[in-house]
Amino acid sequence: MKLEKLIGERFRERPADCVIDSHALMVKGGYMKYMANGIYSSYLPLKRITCKIEQILREEMDKLDGQEVSFPVVMPASLWEESGRYESVGEELLRFTDRNNAKMVLGMTHEEAAVHLVREYAKSYNKYPFMIYQIQTKFRDEARPRAGLIRVREFTMKDAYSFHTSQEDLNQYYEKCHKAYERIFERAGIPEVVSVASDSGMMGGSLSHEFMLLTPVGEDSIVLCNECDFRANMEAAENISDIARDAVPAELEKVHTPDIHTIEDICKFFGDETCNSCKAVVYQKNSDDTYVVVFIRGDLEINETKLVNYLKDEIHPAIITEECGLNAGYIGPVGLKINGDAIVLYDRSLENRNNLSCGANEDEYHYKGLDMQRDVPDAEYHDFAKAYEGGICPKCGKKTIRISRGIEVGNIFQLGDKYTKAMKMTYVDQNGESKTPIMGCYGIGVGRLAAAVCEAHHDEYGPIWPKSIAPWQVHLCAVRADNEEVRKFADDLYEKLQEMGIEVIYDDRTVSAGVMFSDADLLGIPLRVIVSPRNMKQGVVEVASRDKTLQTQVKMEEAAEQVKKYL
Amino acid sequence: MKLEKLIGERFRERPADCVIDSHALMVKGGYMKYMANGIYSSYLPLKRITCKIEQILREEMDKLDGQEVSFPVVMPASLWEESGRYESVGEELLRFTDRNNAKMVLGMTHEEAAVHLVREYAKSYNKYPFMIYQIQTKFRDEARPRAGLIRVREFTMKDAYSFHTSQEDLNQYYEKCHKAYERIFERAGIPEVVSVASDSGMMGGSLSHEFMLLTPVGEDSIVLCNECDFRANMEAAENISDIARDAVPAELEKVHTPDIHTIEDICKFFGDETCNSCKAVVYQKNSDDTYVVVFIRGDLEINETKLVNYLKDEIHPAIITEECGLNAGYIGPVGLKINGDAIVLYDRSLENRNNLSCGANEDEYHYKGLDMQRDVPDAEYHDFAKAYEGGICPKCGKKTIRISRGIEVGNIFQLGDKYTKAMKMTYVDQNGESKTPIMGCYGIGVGRLAAAVCEAHHDEYGPIWPKSIAPWQVHLCAVRADNEEVRKFADDLYEKLQEMGIEVIYDDRTVSAGVMFSDADLLGIPLRVIVSPRNMKQGVVEVASRDKTLQTQVKMEEAAEQVKKYL
Repeated sequence: MKLEKLIGERFRERPADCVIDSHALMVKGGYMKYMANGIYSSYLPLKRITCKIEQILREEMDKLDGQEVSFPVVMPASLWEESGRYESVGEELLRFTDRNNAKMVLGMTHEEAAVHLVREYAKSYNKYPFMIYQIQTKFRDEARPRAGLIRVREFTMKDAYSFHTSQEDLNQYYEKCHKAYERIFERAGIPEVVSVASDSGMMGGSLSHEFMLLTPVGEDSIVLCNECDFRANMEAAENISDIARDAVPAELEKVHTPDIHTIEDICKFFGDETCNSCKAVVYQKNSDDTYVVVFIRGDLEINETKLVNYLKDEIHPAIITEECGLNAGYIGPVGLKINGDAIVLYDRSLENRNNLSCGANEDEYHYKGLDMQRDVPDAEYHDFAKAYEGGICPKCGKKTIRISRGIEVGNIFQLGDKYTKAMKMTYVDQNGESKTPIMGCYGIGVGRLAAAVCEAHHDEYGPIWPKSIAPWQVHLCAVRADNEEVRKFADDLYEKLQEMGIEVIYDDRTVSAGVMFSDADLLGIPLRVIVSPRNMKQGVVEVASRDKTLQTQVKMEEAAEQVKKYL
Repeated sequence: MKLEKLIGERFRERPADCVIDSHALMVKGGYMKYMANGIYSSYLPLKRITCKIEQILREEMDKLDGQEVSFPVVMPASLWEESGRYESVGEELLRFTDRNNAKMVLGMTHEEAAVHLVREYAKSYNKYPFMIYQIQTKFRDEARPRAGLIRVREFTMKDAYSFHTSQEDLNQYYEKCHKAYERIFERAGIPEVVSVASDSGMMGGSLSHEFMLLTPVGEDSIVLCNECDFRANMEAAENISDIARDAVPAELEKVHTPDIHTIEDICKFFGDETCNSCKAVVYQKNSDDTYVVVFIRGDLEINETKLVNYLKDEIHPAIITEECGLNAGYIGPVGLKINGDAIVLYDRSLENRNNLSCGANEDEYHYKGLDMQRDVPDAEYHDFAKAYEGGICPKCGKKTIRISRGIEVGNIFQLGDKYTKAMKMTYVDQNGESKTPIMGCYGIGVGRLAAAVCEAHHDEYGPIWPKSIAPWQVHLCAVRADNEEVRKFADDLYEKLQEMGIEVIYDDRTVSAGVMFSDADLLGIPLRVIVSPRNMKQGVVEVASRDKTLQTQVKMEEAAEQVKKYL
């Protein structure tokens, strides 16, 4: 099509409110338009990109024997009540009532709808395994939409749901799906995406992976090993304790420590490092405000996801009242007093440690010489710590842990029987017994994937779209289209390329070459073909790739064939 | 794909709660599943049908230079406040608040979103005309969803919006779009769809057409002429008065008519026909409860849409209180008394009439001999009547009006400046003056179109899908697939047809031929290919079309090529 007719606003300046480059470039280049917080409309270039991504997704899902279906965006609350998520999911689930006062929700994910669609159909073992998927609008009422299409409220998602009669079968399918995801990201032009073990969160189930594009602007923290292939997201990454017990244990000694409250200050006071201290972090359970005291090595941080998973309850930072008995700033494991119910937990980083400093549960007093074995003999240890840069890899055991940031572009979950059981889906097995099937689910956000590709492949002037998802393949520029010869040749080339089945965007505006090329940069089409009076005098047209790896001249009469070759 | 793997429930009996055949067959055949009132999920066969319809829509919109965009399903109420529709549209517009208490709506149509997307872009006359379209989920909180996919609450719609700088340009584009719609319905297999002039309703604007599939189960009434090409929907159809004045006018005479309340009774009492009476129908305006008394010929009915358009206000049937002064059952134009504000209107069917009976505004009294000219000299006449079977055609003037029923499968509207003006969209014209562009909009519901095709093309056993939108092209049945030769030949044919690019659904289940054929009928695939031991003995396979126009045998070795030929 002609660029002159392309609807959308393009800006010369970087939009002020865009934090990450992909967002800035996609607003600047006329791909999308803000309508409300986390809600956008798309112009044609973005629509063409997402259509191509959707086609890749469709093909890969079909290869996995997936059957495309469609679920409603608006669902009755009763369906979510069946699974228990109407209550358990937070405000991201948008709840409302229709004209008849019936409770409804906007679909943010469709496990319930998937079970609803197939539970009467799949009543016999011989129907299994099978997979259904859809590509459909979803709405998640995010507290903090950000970064353009990376975290929005309304989005298009490919979500797939598989059903199985055994864990082995699910494992096999899950593995196939993992491979399909690798193919998808490769086909979309970001083969550098890595999968990381992840926490299953509100989805339930056990095993899960997130597919991450590593980039400093990502909103997720990822734990990787520099030596082996260990990868996990921060929520799921195991932390390995790496400091051994001192050979010579000191005595437990109470020391007067006036005006010292933080773990850093007490370590400085004792002339020791924070890794040789025992820090207390206090939470309360959301359900009943029970205090949860977690002791951890002074230099580490609590991974709250691990804590929540252990407690099977949500938590919030504690409000330490006079009545509760805790001495804020002086809390330690020896002589700890709490009034009422409380839970006391110990991170594995403290296991076997000695010669530690800690609070003495008394104003202005700390202990030094704490020996966990000797002084807290009943402590049970669990992993509650965040992994950290330079820590020990849980897989290869080397001190080679690295923390990186990433954008999640896909995820796969083994859901087990969480939904099928709650929603009473059963089948009859070979022996005539009633069983509950198990599920996997597999998601990729279409718009987020487009933005991630842009984030991975752009320069300061615009996106550099891979051929597979570029809105057009060729950007034809007629520099000086007011020149009769230029126009005639460019018009003919435009026709010819289109007849050859090549998608061409044709700029025949009478604007300066500068404006023309900066618009072309913003559209990020893989191959640029420039027809100009100067080139034509030499009997050539210029062909250049957007990623700057190619810049050459081809003979005018061979232009169309050469362009096809370069594609 | 193999039918055995096709997910979805197929039923032997007609589902009990389905009123129309297309609904019954699409539930029975495993196309769709009910989730909530007016909300369905789709299985693969329907998904494949709607995908093909969407592709036809896309191609036809692109031919009109349309640019595909996407608008959000969830929109901020502020956008609808700009156009005034947040207030003016009824409960079909689902309104709710998000987690931050911001007012939102679910998109039931996207005029506001269209203006929002382009109003900064299209600030100069040289950007016009242009058209944008999307294929997207919509939600309309219908009071009475019915008839399966014909009237649902959530649906997928192709909606297009064109922008113009002159009425002439809009007229031309509107005409092109009208032609494109004819092509679309022809390509989808229902060329019998007719366009009818329609009322623009809540969309605003002036000229509009609905595209109707005529069928007795349709929910719309359509007024057609048996002699000429006049067609309009009931809301928009002009009614022509066809009874002349009597040559000899009678005197106005008040008659005692005890226990007579209805117009039928009074006509019987006077020994006259109802067409020779003047009936009163009383409404109240929704905005302020003002009484609206409409006088009309006794045998005609009020077309409330015409009345609403005239009043520019919604109405409801009147509650006639003692205080209002009206004598229910005896209301007439002579000596009419109403306390407070009231509007009195006269339908054109009364113009120039005489010798009519009517109420005398007094308990137990009617007039006869009413002469509108003489007795109600100040009356102004407007068209408020419903057209009726055998009435006069407004176009050719013959008494050849016929009333038919239809399913609306598409609509096109000239919107004028209703949205652009309210939302302050302007452009600068050739003379540097600021002007308001005008719009057209063009909608087709994808699921409803699929259902309409099914309604038009089915038999008692299932749908008969046209090739253009059938989920598969060939239904291959291996009767006695447990027979080694049958299986081998059918498997090979399945592979071969697929390699030839033909979409095949392959039934190789070991079920009876009866079950196999009844499932095939339900799937409605255009061409059926039957491999069976009996056929193979004769060296042939059977080829039959779903619409029963073809039933033949082809040589086994030529099967694939012959099938391709029949397609």
